[in-house]
Amino acid sequence: MLPTFRKLLLVAAAIMLAACGSHGTAVDTIWTARYVVTMDPQRTVIEDGALAISGDHIVEAGPRATIDAKYTAAQRLDAGDAIITPGLINTHTHAAMSLFRGIADDLKLQEWLDKYIFPAEAKNVDREFVRWGTRLAVLEMALSGTTTYTDMYYFEDTVAEETKRAGLRGVLGETIIGMPSPDYKTPQAALAGTEAFLRTYGNDPLIVPAVAPHSIYTNSDETLVACRRLANQYQKPLLIHLSETKKENDDALSARKKTPTAALDSLGVLNGWTVAAHGVWLDDADLAILKARGTGLAHCPSSNMMLASGVAPVVKMLMLDIPVGLGTDGVAGSNNDHNMMEEMDLAAKLQKVSTGDPQALTAKEAFAMATIGGAKALRLDKLIGSIEPGKRADLIAIRLDQPNAVPLYNVYSQLVYALKGADVSDVMVNGKLIVRERKMLTLNQPEILARAEEYRKSIAAPLTRKTLASKTP
Amino acid sequence: MLPTFRKLLLVAAAIMLAACGSHGTAVDTIWTARYVVTMDPQRTVIEDGALAISGDHIVEAGPRATIDAKYTAAQRLDAGDAIITPGLINTHTHAAMSLFRGIADDLKLQEWLDKYIFPAEAKNVDREFVRWGTRLAVLEMALSGTTTYTDMYYFEDTVAEETKRAGLRGVLGETIIGMPSPDYKTPQAALAGTEAFLRTYGNDPLIVPAVAPHSIYTNSDETLVACRRLANQYQKPLLIHLSETKKENDDALSARKKTPTAALDSLGVLNGWTVAAHGVWLDDADLAILKARGTGLAHCPSSNMMLASGVAPVVKMLMLDIPVGLGTDGVAGSNNDHNMMEEMDLAAKLQKVSTGDPQALTAKEAFAMATIGGAKALRLDKLIGSIEPGKRADLIAIRLDQPNAVPLYNVYSQLVYALKGADVSDVMVNGKLIVRERKMLTLNQPEILARAEEYRKSIAAPLTRKTLASKTP
Repeated sequence: MLPTFRKLLLVAAAIMLAACGSHGTAVDTIWTARYVVTMDPQRTVIEDGALAISGDHIVEAGPRATIDAKYTAAQRLDAGDAIITPGLINTHTHAAMSLFRGIADDLKLQEWLDKYIFPAEAKNVDREFVRWGTRLAVLEMALSGTTTYTDMYYFEDTVAEETKRAGLRGVLGETIIGMPSPDYKTPQAALAGTEAFLRTYGNDPLIVPAVAPHSIYTNSDETLVACRRLANQYQKPLLIHLSETKKENDDALSARKKTPTAALDSLGVLNGWTVAAHGVWLDDADLAILKARGTGLAHCPSSNMMLASGVAPVVKMLMLDIPVGLGTDGVAGSNNDHNMMEEMDLAAKLQKVSTGDPQALTAKEAFAMATIGGAKALRLDKLIGSIEPGKRADLIAIRLDQPNAVPLYNVYSQLVYALKGADVSDVMVNGKLIVRERKMLTLNQPEILARAEEYRKSIAAPLTRKTLASKTP
Repeated sequence: MLPTFRKLLLVAAAIMLAACGSHGTAVDTIWTARYVVTMDPQRTVIEDGALAISGDHIVEAGPRATIDAKYTAAQRLDAGDAIITPGLINTHTHAAMSLFRGIADDLKLQEWLDKYIFPAEAKNVDREFVRWGTRLAVLEMALSGTTTYTDMYYFEDTVAEETKRAGLRGVLGETIIGMPSPDYKTPQAALAGTEAFLRTYGNDPLIVPAVAPHSIYTNSDETLVACRRLANQYQKPLLIHLSETKKENDDALSARKKTPTAALDSLGVLNGWTVAAHGVWLDDADLAILKARGTGLAHCPSSNMMLASGVAPVVKMLMLDIPVGLGTDGVAGSNNDHNMMEEMDLAAKLQKVSTGDPQALTAKEAFAMATIGGAKALRLDKLIGSIEPGKRADLIAIRLDQPNAVPLYNVYSQLVYALKGADVSDVMVNGKLIVRERKMLTLNQPEILARAEEYRKSIAAPLTRKTLASKTP
């Protein structure tokens, strides 16, 4: 027995050596950079940092020397003079509307929706429009550092298909609305289509299918309740616009004697996994309801400014520990880009100027909203939003080799106030590189841009001359 | 006589042929692009456009076919799928502070100035600091489309030297302030230095030297009056901060029973060529004074938001036809970049949300503020700010080959809301290309970035660990 026991000991020692010895544990990728900003609960920033990545997830983050001592990697990436951060999380948009970018600006939300966007959608939006619009949007998002986005639009199965093809992560919901939509004649048909969508993508590694009633003011109570029931049945999120404009609030108060939040709550619509977009006109009682229901908020500063919707009470939300993420919203007259680096800058500056307090929302808090805060608002924070062992490898590298990037005194200040979407060099989602040195690896950029211009010609040919030299002075 | 007369006729005909015939008038450069946005009084936008440029000035802009028929050029540039516009005009900054980028953010102006910026300046700012800080700033400005900038700082002769070396246009004023500054112990010494500076650069093709009292609250009345006298003697502009914060207004009202504007006016300080920065707290009576005196305003939306100074009454200023330009302000805690493409976007969105009117400031008006409006605010609109025959060839090309640039329905909407500083591909100042395909031709970028990082190390070495993981939650 003794020789056998010694043999076993030797085998065990050999295994331990292979695992922990000079060669280290095998991982797929080691990725190094000047800084790793983890956004973990301690907000650890690692100088001269490295990440060990295997399959779809992060194995460990630490100083370069530590990671090098513990792991050997099949692939070695060096971002160099750069910051690696969690991928940015866009908690509210309508991606395919990118084909309408700038078609109708400088208008009030209701006029913009009723006179321009709904008619333009009725006339132009079909499955191929959504395919090319989504391709354009995810290309723009990935190149500016977004790894997860949240969508409410039409032909959402095509959105899912194109999101997976591009390699981004998506929380995607077919818009359910009380008028004929481009793909469904009735909300009932949209609900049935959504159920099929929930079944198809229920266990997808990249797609979280959602139920997305447009808003309280465009849906019947019956539809809203059915949406909640469906979402809970499949344990998927419900996405909805909420208190975006004063008009929405005034109308609800006049018709129902309740705020939109209180009305939704009394219908039971907030009982479950919910992400509400905008929340500009939420009052203290509304915030208490959202806090109690665990609703996540998608704050959209560009959109709220551009449509003059107002300023959301973000500081209050954060004080109440309501999870808040950032969203670009669609780019047709309410932004007009899918650039999360701008949203975080705007979010911080807008809270400062509107509260009169330059410390109202700091750079560190704004960057948290774009990452772990967004993950919490989507209730996906066990998977994404920070660099921690076991979480999905959704990561971006932001280079520091442009004049706006130097000198660097504080990484959060630089990320929020000085670095740009165009400084994002590399993007990884679910362990797979989709952008390398500012080139999208999964999409044909020239083809997408050419198709977008073709769409413009067919959508707006008769308008072009007029819009080129529009009426405003 | 007849043969001689015929000879003369023949010679005249030959000259006319050479000038207007198939070969066309000789110019230095023809520059073509998909669009030329002129910002002339008619706001002409030329599709498939071209510019003829000779020496330091624009000869003509028009459709490509027209320009090709009329001119032949030694050099031919094709910006391709791009927009050529007038160069952007930054009407207020402190360029060399770029070496303090992000050193102290999220603070109130007075605390930020007194506790961080003034001490950091006293300790670190010398001629070499200003040289490298200016180099970094003009590099960043040029690469994001700025061709003219307005500066108030120290060692302004070095600022002028470096601005000329880089090839930008500058309106440059030595800061005159009632405390010992990095280069002058007293305001009297600064005034004497300014007079020498005015003499040196009085007729420079790129530099407009200016007299720059910091503000009413940092100077004695005597100094302010002396500044005005000096500026008028040399017929150069006076640059000053004005009504930036509520505190500045409250202090003036309590000490003088007058607003800062009324107080300056009663001293005669506004009688002449003046550019006032910020103007956040101007009231209707102040605006009437500024209108009467022909004072130009530098609106700084990023700075006013970040320092929570407030929202300037820009819509009122424009209604009164007060010339308003845009400024980035310095980048040490009040922006933090020199990116005019962001200022125009912010200017439009901030007026919309603060007035509740999405049409408060349109894309076309915001782009005008960044170009011809800035030129008018600086009283340089006979030279720069639009593409018109005889004006200086200060021009930029903005490429349309990135996903955020397409589709393009309206050029102004795209310029203000969708295009970025990083989309600027080429920059010409005074007829000379200084940026070509995003490479600065006149400066050594790697050397400047390396020196900026060295400055950071010496300025903030003991702070680095703390600022990397700052105290804010």
